[in-house]
Amino acid sequence: MKAFLDENFLLKTKTAQTLYHEYAKDMPIIDYHNHLPPDQILADGTFGNLTQAWLYGDHYKWRAMRSNGISEQYCTGNASDYQKFEKWADTMPYTMRNPLYHWSHLELQRYFGIHEVLSPNTAKATYDNASEKLKTREYSIRNLLKMAKATTVCTTDDPLDDLAHHAAYKAETGNKTDEVTMLPAFRPDKFILIENPQFNSFIERLSMLVGSEISDFESLKAALKSRAEFFKSQGCKISDHGLERISAEPFTDENLQSIFKKKLENKTLSPQEIEIYKSGVLHFLGKLYHELGWVQQFHLGAMRNNNLRAMRTLGPDTGWDSIGDFAQGRSLSTFLGKLDENDQLAKTVIYNLNPSDNHIMATMIGNFNDGSTVGKIQWGSGWWFLDQKDGMENQLNTLSNLGLLSRFIGMLTDSRSFLSFPR
Amino acid sequence: MKAFLDENFLLKTKTAQTLYHEYAKDMPIIDYHNHLPPDQILADGTFGNLTQAWLYGDHYKWRAMRSNGISEQYCTGNASDYQKFEKWADTMPYTMRNPLYHWSHLELQRYFGIHEVLSPNTAKATYDNASEKLKTREYSIRNLLKMAKATTVCTTDDPLDDLAHHAAYKAETGNKTDEVTMLPAFRPDKFILIENPQFNSFIERLSMLVGSEISDFESLKAALKSRAEFFKSQGCKISDHGLERISAEPFTDENLQSIFKKKLENKTLSPQEIEIYKSGVLHFLGKLYHELGWVQQFHLGAMRNNNLRAMRTLGPDTGWDSIGDFAQGRSLSTFLGKLDENDQLAKTVIYNLNPSDNHIMATMIGNFNDGSTVGKIQWGSGWWFLDQKDGMENQLNTLSNLGLLSRFIGMLTDSRSFLSFPR
Amino acid sequence: MKAFLDENFLLKTKTAQTLYHEYAKDMPIIDYHNHLPPDQILADGTFGNLTQAWLYGDHYKWRAMRSNGISEQYCTGNASDYQKFEKWADTMPYTMRNPLYHWSHLELQRYFGIHEVLSPNTAKATYDNASEKLKTREYSIRNLLKMAKATTVCTTDDPLDDLAHHAAYKAETGNKTDEVTMLPAFRPDKFILIENPQFNSFIERLSMLVGSEISDFESLKAALKSRAEFFKSQGCKISDHGLERISAEPFTDENLQSIFKKKLENKTLSPQEIEIYKSGVLHFLGKLYHELGWVQQFHLGAMRNNNLRAMRTLGPDTGWDSIGDFAQGRSLSTFLGKLDENDQLAKTVIYNLNPSDNHIMATMIGNFNDGSTVGKIQWGSGWWFLDQKDGMENQLNTLSNLGLLSRFIGMLTDSRSFLSFPR
Repeated sequence: MKAFLDENFLLKTKTAQTLYHEYAKDMPIIDYHNHLPPDQILADGTFGNLTQAWLYGDHYKWRAMRSNGISEQYCTGNASDYQKFEKWADTMPYTMRNPLYHWSHLELQRYFGIHEVLSPNTAKATYDNASEKLKTREYSIRNLLKMAKATTVCTTDDPLDDLAHHAAYKAETGNKTDEVTMLPAFRPDKFILIENPQFNSFIERLSMLVGSEISDFESLKAALKSRAEFFKSQGCKISDHGLERISAEPFTDENLQSIFKKKLENKTLSPQEIEIYKSGVLHFLGKLYHELGWVQQFHLGAMRNNNLRAMRTLGPDTGWDSIGDFAQGRSLSTFLGKLDENDQLAKTVIYNLNPSDNHIMATMIGNFNDGSTVGKIQWGSGWWFLDQKDGMENQLNTLSNLGLLSRFIGMLTDSRSFLSFPR
Repeated sequence: MKAFLDENFLLKTKTAQTLYHEYAKDMPIIDYHNHLPPDQILADGTFGNLTQAWLYGDHYKWRAMRSNGISEQYCTGNASDYQKFEKWADTMPYTMRNPLYHWSHLELQRYFGIHEVLSPNTAKATYDNASEKLKTREYSIRNLLKMAKATTVCTTDDPLDDLAHHAAYKAETGNKTDEVTMLPAFRPDKFILIENPQFNSFIERLSMLVGSEISDFESLKAALKSRAEFFKSQGCKISDHGLERISAEPFTDENLQSIFKKKLENKTLSPQEIEIYKSGVLHFLGKLYHELGWVQQFHLGAMRNNNLRAMRTLGPDTGWDSIGDFAQGRSLSTFLGKLDENDQLAKTVIYNLNPSDNHIMATMIGNFNDGSTVGKIQWGSGWWFLDQKDGMENQLNTLSNLGLLSRFIGMLTDSRSFLSFPR
Repeated sequence: MKAFLDENFLLKTKTAQTLYHEYAKDMPIIDYHNHLPPDQILADGTFGNLTQAWLYGDHYKWRAMRSNGISEQYCTGNASDYQKFEKWADTMPYTMRNPLYHWSHLELQRYFGIHEVLSPNTAKATYDNASEKLKTREYSIRNLLKMAKATTVCTTDDPLDDLAHHAAYKAETGNKTDEVTMLPAFRPDKFILIENPQFNSFIERLSMLVGSEISDFESLKAALKSRAEFFKSQGCKISDHGLERISAEPFTDENLQSIFKKKLENKTLSPQEIEIYKSGVLHFLGKLYHELGWVQQFHLGAMRNNNLRAMRTLGPDTGWDSIGDFAQGRSLSTFLGKLDENDQLAKTVIYNLNPSDNHIMATMIGNFNDGSTVGKIQWGSGWWFLDQKDGMENQLNTLSNLGLLSRFIGMLTDSRSFLSFPR
């Protein structure tokens, strides 16, 4: 019988094994999109135990635990680190057929050399073994990245961020070829989502940061441009956006001016005004990225923060998001087309969360691949809920049928955890 | 060569065969959702022939016959029972690759020991053989359920139903451990679908049944609550709803009051008013089910009665329904979220008819699995048009990828026929 | 090792090989829908080289080239024929896993006996070899069709077309049993898409063609009927429509009258007026086809001409189209139901471009298969972007699960190229 998760896991044919072991295995990871915390990479600390490294912040695991009837106390609550780990070990056997089952065991194997199946019986030994290792310098945060052969990581950053950690990290590691390169990415969602009650407070903070009042749409554009240029000066080459869908309504400068002013006066915007504002600011940003020579990324289709109770008590990104069924085709085409019309369309990567949109995305990119460069417009790899074998195979097969797989940009980690690279 | 439909049908591996024959095969069926007629279960009669048991009321078979060019006379019309059977036997060979081909032969095998392939050549012998058996007590309605190892069946019942058959059946069988348990389920669709021209007549009948006038939304709520409490007193533990999509517009008591009164006055409601009414009554029902400790089920996405000619002459549920493409995500999230916000969300099972919504459903349940109990929110198994090998595999695989298959509630029959349990 | 693309390509089992080689292989192709140019079939000319026959007009290949970074000059521009071919040969290896890779090699094999894999190394020899053959009479346009065993081809024609090429072809070949039959099909899209700025000029041309002024909706109907009757007199038995979605809003004669007049007066129509007009004209056409005894086809779901720059410089059908996510279910049901209600529904074939709509289509046809004839309503085969192994398998499997595959109308070529039949 074949060993569980041996070195040929998923590699069913001789060809697959050769390709992996002789070609892919030792290649570096250039992780052009993730959510790793720059301060932790700068600090290069160690974790106190396996729960801190593995369960803190991993909403995939929390979701599985909750479905398994584990109360919040053991997910994000005040139970002890070991109690939390025990509850995860209780849940582990029930995750069979979910990618967490393979991911977790892969991570235990690849980082810690632990080949036992995690279950209540093996919980204590696993915890002690891995925690012991994590406390050593060998398992410091930067060393964990190196173990995964990551050579470049692009974090995801707020335009309000001063990128001080990036600067300090660069100052410290800039000349060392054995250190991971860390670059920022520009994610201005909070300046797009005008319906957010906190929007005006973000504008205020932006205003303070750039040192000039933002009193109209023109000054907003100037401020965003100034931040983007600062990001570029810090090595940024890429932007990202997390949106339900692209907005691409017709707009005029007058529209945008009056809607933005109305918002600054704390008046309620109509759904149509919200759409027009978003359309205008997205178009502006698209042109800006083209001017800066950046790649723009769009993550489309998540329906976030569905659980109002949890949103109130735990905040966003704690495992209460799901896949939406928003209309994507028309507005995406209009948005890209309007930029392309004047040759102002930057290199673009589009990710969809609902696999029912796969064929839309796979054919959309062909509309704007104009031959000016190889694979200018890309359909991003299986994202979030689709970041498992079925989701990735579907993306690869659909892209193969409808585009050129051989010109595909390849995977990223989208990681929120330093231990998740084997995934 | 492997025999057609032998005891290892679909069981390709040794593991599958062991799991089925040594574990699954002899397990009882707890059929928590079907459309079996309580009066027939109470009466425990026998069928006059195979057509009565097999073709009367089976809109799957009618649809196949019509596609095969068989006129209505032989489906629901006045042809003789044997003529109808002959036309079905004519159609049988053309159903190859449709689940009806396997279902029909499985049913002939498992109930009647008939292993011949049904075709015009074998029609007469099959009909005579099965009809002969059906006339005996061994094949009475309750015995057919027992042959299928059904131990509990939940029928689907109208709030206007007095549940007299359920009561009489319970009085007769209540203490006998070898009898099938039959429980009612509460399906109040006709009090949700306010656009139905017959809506006011349903309100009148409800009014008479509860013995007090329903003159406003408050008295409607009281009447529905009274019926639900009566259902509970008769053993009901579950509700069900068949809707194109969930309605979850904002509403106020004043809205609901005025819309409901407008309807009682036979005035035409706007589409928005209809949505608001539905949103209000669904929210009320959701809270009620939570209070009663029931499970609530939602069957979403069918587009019914598309054929207006057939609707006029044959009525609903005669094989003219199809799969719709209604937006499901946002309203479902809002509906569940609003109930959950005050911890008034009952255990819930959601079924979708359009497999393009699979990923929405599989991730939606995770938004409200709050750890309070194991698998509180469930994504129901492949339903109706999806109740075949591909549809069920997709549901199982998607659930595996996005949730915990091991906490899945499992299959039901959704049956309208006493012979359909082998499916 | 199995040879690349040998005679058992895709035929993995003995059964498949027997079915293909002993039954399917020598059957004629009755190609009931394609986009072949009647003038070229009439002229029966030869091609000057492989680029003219293979790359001129093939937007599939252009799209692949553009994705591969090949500039427009080599797709539709003024590069020499051989330069264009070289760029295609450069791209060929990068199309691995795309159907173009197999299609192209199949075409080289079946028409030219070329078994080498096309790449920069083999470009010159391939080009010379195939071009030499193409110049001979053996490779004339009609002979290419005969090589593919095509016996009947239905072209796609504009109601404004005088069908002179069809008439001349029929006059020339009418009595010869060894000649391909060429029939016209009626595609009146330009009289449906009232939002098109050129609409009124089409009306003017139609008016001149039928020799009477089109001043209101009644005279438009008369003119369309007159053209359809003329098409019928020329052998037409089928119509076709390429639409994003079916329009099926309620309408009255007064509505249609006033909207059409408003358009003739060059006034701007509201989105709702556009929908009402389309609904009315589609319903009229549907009744007309029923009266004429035709089959009606609907190609639904393409989002066309997304690239505004290319639309301006290259025009439509040059490879800038993609798959849309339009709501299809309700309006399609209403449209078919309204025709069926008075038994005025013609035989119908519906094609969808977004595979997420597969289950809608596969169940929709069952709503109107009324038993009056075998397979009256058909779900068309995998179309355009879906016209590859995965797309066709999905269509066949979904149809099998939800309808009768054995009553399926079968494939067509949808071809725009005389070399594309092996696909």
